[in-house]
Amino acid sequence: MLTNLSPSPQLENFLADWTYGIQRSVLRQMIAVVSRPGILSFAGGLPAPELFPSAHFAEAMSHVLLSDQRTLQYGPPLPALKAHIVDLMAQRGITCTPEEVFITTGAQQGLAVLATMLLNPAGQIILEEIIYTGIQQTIAPYRPEILSVSTDLTTGIDVDAVEKHLQAGAKPAFLYVVPEAHNPLGVSMSLAKRQQLAQLASRYQLPLIEDDAYGFLTYDEMPLPPLRTMNEDWVFYLGSFSKIIAPALRLGWMVAPPALVPKLTVVKEAFDLETSGLMQRAVSAFLDAGHLPSHLARLRQTYKERRDVMLQMLATCFPTGVRWTIPAGGMFIWVELPRHIDTAQLLEVAIATEKVAFIPGYAFALPDVNARHCLRLNFSNARPEHIQDGIQRLAKVINQFL
Amino acid sequence: MLTNLSPSPQLENFLADWTYGIQRSVLRQMIAVVSRPGILSFAGGLPAPELFPSAHFAEAMSHVLLSDQRTLQYGPPLPALKAHIVDLMAQRGITCTPEEVFITTGAQQGLAVLATMLLNPAGQIILEEIIYTGIQQTIAPYRPEILSVSTDLTTGIDVDAVEKHLQAGAKPAFLYVVPEAHNPLGVSMSLAKRQQLAQLASRYQLPLIEDDAYGFLTYDEMPLPPLRTMNEDWVFYLGSFSKIIAPALRLGWMVAPPALVPKLTVVKEAFDLETSGLMQRAVSAFLDAGHLPSHLARLRQTYKERRDVMLQMLATCFPTGVRWTIPAGGMFIWVELPRHIDTAQLLEVAIATEKVAFIPGYAFALPDVNARHCLRLNFSNARPEHIQDGIQRLAKVINQFL
Repeated sequence: MLTNLSPSPQLENFLADWTYGIQRSVLRQMIAVVSRPGILSFAGGLPAPELFPSAHFAEAMSHVLLSDQRTLQYGPPLPALKAHIVDLMAQRGITCTPEEVFITTGAQQGLAVLATMLLNPAGQIILEEIIYTGIQQTIAPYRPEILSVSTDLTTGIDVDAVEKHLQAGAKPAFLYVVPEAHNPLGVSMSLAKRQQLAQLASRYQLPLIEDDAYGFLTYDEMPLPPLRTMNEDWVFYLGSFSKIIAPALRLGWMVAPPALVPKLTVVKEAFDLETSGLMQRAVSAFLDAGHLPSHLARLRQTYKERRDVMLQMLATCFPTGVRWTIPAGGMFIWVELPRHIDTAQLLEVAIATEKVAFIPGYAFALPDVNARHCLRLNFSNARPEHIQDGIQRLAKVINQFL
Repeated sequence: MLTNLSPSPQLENFLADWTYGIQRSVLRQMIAVVSRPGILSFAGGLPAPELFPSAHFAEAMSHVLLSDQRTLQYGPPLPALKAHIVDLMAQRGITCTPEEVFITTGAQQGLAVLATMLLNPAGQIILEEIIYTGIQQTIAPYRPEILSVSTDLTTGIDVDAVEKHLQAGAKPAFLYVVPEAHNPLGVSMSLAKRQQLAQLASRYQLPLIEDDAYGFLTYDEMPLPPLRTMNEDWVFYLGSFSKIIAPALRLGWMVAPPALVPKLTVVKEAFDLETSGLMQRAVSAFLDAGHLPSHLARLRQTYKERRDVMLQMLATCFPTGVRWTIPAGGMFIWVELPRHIDTAQLLEVAIATEKVAFIPGYAFALPDVNARHCLRLNFSNARPEHIQDGIQRLAKVINQFL
């Protein structure tokens, strides 16, 4: 032990400058707290585990492990998986070639790779005021200048506000957007706004990162076309198997302009060399076996039912003056309470007295954005009877705060 | 299609500044080329696939997939796996607690997380002139000032040169080092140099990143103690299951000062949210079943035999004037040819005429470092008879270049 050779300052004082602003993700910290047994939680962004195709996936795993020793070796991205992804993309109306498909270790890695490729230190980006925390964490090391825009709860991101920034001379490295079933807002962008944004991208040379994690989980009529169908040159499309098969696969993809794939490859290698070939082969075998269509149908049916039950309970139990989004897909409903209610305090009381949990809105807000009166509810990971029970309990707590 | 709405400049012109210096990894590009059928390749850094414990791992996978639906869910790092890693660390002489173990998506991710946590844009770091390419890729986005030091082929990194930099006032964010079975040089650091470096770290507040990917693959007497056993305050230890179970797991770990684990967690979340819980559980089950000790014994025996065959063939077939390292472990032998030989040209001829491949030294050299007369040979992924055949063929080509 050499610790005391000299009165040494601590390692903690020798980190990169940006890290002194690090705060533990409120979101994930909170999910740990509210996942305690006995808590009825609408907090996580979790798929329903009882729907995981564990048996079919175990078959696929055994097959690929026992049929080819190379399954466990290093190797390039799997062509068979890319071919499956091309087919999946066609279901979203996206025409692409295997050369445009870039395999990632989950969609979050796609974000990290793109931030590294697009963003200079202290560069500009455009973000919605309330947005997925993963993008906020990804850009933190760059200490970017964030240009914020608001989001309409029925039509999505304020594209006029985006254009105003661009007209004023902003040169953002990218705009990150979740057009389908926004996390946490639960809103899907209107067709007109999608078209307007896709046009802005070309006109102002604005790279768009389209996060379509929930694109296959829509519950009503046909979903609207992704941005990528409207602009192939400026849109990076991010897809994920986390919500349609399982999160623990850590497998996603990007559809990118093929000229950029060599650079994306170098950036990704620095992060984790490559995405697990075992996982790529197992998912490809699962898809070969034809399990996805019926599995997706079951997910959509179950989640639609849960969404409908939650919406009905909100309408029945929540007091007047409370507003919420009507999600066409995904996993979340965003709730706005009267402005004087602090949902962080509400959560404490809800857990203590009614054993029910959610995520307070501030967890998703950019710095200086006030979402303290809002909260996010997850409907995918609770059975209908628990939703009925839990929303009643939550309404009781809200009534105490009115 | 909105591509032609305006005469738009291409997306390729709107990337982060550092990306214009990106070159496709020579190493990985080359591995693709020389992996063609019919080529006898000593190029890759690959474990022997015929030794992968595929059947036992398939059993572990089936067990964890079929016994618990949460296996496929999001979740925190697996305590059972951390406990196994604590035991593994004890085999390397390292005493640590589960709180100091940080699970990563392969050791490469550990590098990326540490670079992001330690390195400011344009900051300084210390690297050996010839070094693992993964660290070079990881730091590239920061455009650091690299202070280089040479490496002795029998005792390892020049620690005096490190100290000279520090005495001259350098404030490097970290020093990256592979004390055991250096990739690509095949050298292990002497005990005296390890102790000297561990002391320097405390004296000069220099964080050390100790990459121990090959620490469990040593073939002679007991390996020397890792740096982490000599300095708990300034050493980040990186471990990997890639070389001792299989690369396609993409599973590794870090032993870090526990005060930094919360920050490491936030940095890692930005990269991929979390490491696959499925993989963590499967590896933990594989270790529960007690498969690792006999598997490791088999790996060590097989690789030792291959190393010995290759060393013997080099002594027998290579002309005088050629030098090479005698690795105590790992997978690589580093060869220095007479200075006038360009190993990039040699490789072309070797592939064309003798169908034998290696990696030319320049692939591992820092910019401005000349290693054009050197080459790296891998011995772990070729059977003894192929090593005998291949080294004879390679000697034939070298003789043409003398």
